[in-house]
Amino acid sequence: MGETPLLDRLVEALRCLPGVGPKSAQRMALQVLERDREGALRLAEVLKAAVEHIGHCQCCRTLTEHPLCRICVDMHRDRHLLCVVETPADQMAIEQATGFRGQYHVLLGQLSPLDGIGPEELGLDRLEARLAEGEIQELILATGTTVEGEVTAHYIADMARGHKVRTTRIAQGIPLGGELDYVDRGTLSHAFSGRRDL
Amino acid sequence: MGETPLLDRLVEALRCLPGVGPKSAQRMALQVLERDREGALRLAEVLKAAVEHIGHCQCCRTLTEHPLCRICVDMHRDRHLLCVVETPADQMAIEQATGFRGQYHVLLGQLSPLDGIGPEELGLDRLEARLAEGEIQELILATGTTVEGEVTAHYIADMARGHKVRTTRIAQGIPLGGELDYVDRGTLSHAFSGRRDL
Repeated sequence: MGETPLLDRLVEALRCLPGVGPKSAQRMALQVLERDREGALRLAEVLKAAVEHIGHCQCCRTLTEHPLCRICVDMHRDRHLLCVVETPADQMAIEQATGFRGQYHVLLGQLSPLDGIGPEELGLDRLEARLAEGEIQELILATGTTVEGEVTAHYIADMARGHKVRTTRIAQGIPLGGELDYVDRGTLSHAFSGRRDL
Repeated sequence: MGETPLLDRLVEALRCLPGVGPKSAQRMALQVLERDREGALRLAEVLKAAVEHIGHCQCCRTLTEHPLCRICVDMHRDRHLLCVVETPADQMAIEQATGFRGQYHVLLGQLSPLDGIGPEELGLDRLEARLAEGEIQELILATGTTVEGEVTAHYIADMARGHKVRTTRIAQGIPLGGELDYVDRGTLSHAFSGRRDL
């Protein structure tokens, strides 16, 4: 089993999880060993299976252990609506928060030529092929509102224009329940100039 | 692989870790799959090995994959000093914070007759045998300062008295850097009545 005690190696290994520092890794290791060995064993098995079997959907590029993900094979989803997101986490957030019943394209990143991330790395050739099929009527751009997210959205909007597909961008403004006082200047200025009739 | 998608099962399995709710489990699952599959695989392997091989030290009852833990087999540790703690985490905290170079007895709990936790469940027969050997000169009681921790400490102190072993209790009072204002009444009253000459 090597020279380092197994417990120390477990604490170290737990730190691959996001937001887990040395202190919480130690607490996790001790707690599962003292109170939930069954859960820990199940986690070990599922984690191994997930790493070995989960890849990307051949159609929308989200994470799945099948060739096509649940949403892409679901015949009840609206094939006229396509939502573009940056990550599987963003896709999950939209699924959980909204009633969106269309399909997705998951970029798995943002355009960033300096880091060598171009249209091909984001699967935009595949997205363009879907747009060319003529079934999509609205392309919803739900990339982040960072500079890179905006650049990516504009690039894809240009592409969609070439195929005469209506393109929309998720609304930007004051978050719900937000006090104007606490919102950053950029957001406030954007929300003000983007005001709408009541 | 069952009906539930592997990703959902991974999110569920991660919740066996303390302090991990649905949201952070999802973030962990997505992040390891997108960015650190190697680390996830290592975690799966170490977790499995830990659950299968880590048991309790036959001498002090702390967690170890060997019959006796590192500290119990270390001939350089002072065999005249024995520190009693409730959990392996408490033992680790003392190892990391103090210069203590003696040995330990890990109770793995607190006396709680109503929950069926008596002296035997805390390995006190084994502790008494160690006291009877006559090598221990000081027994340091480092159980918690909760009611159960105090009761446990008193029970063990009575036992040690029977073997004429000097027994000490870790100091209770105002934490270092603590403002009197922010300390609870019980602690303040205890610290006041336990004042010492300068």
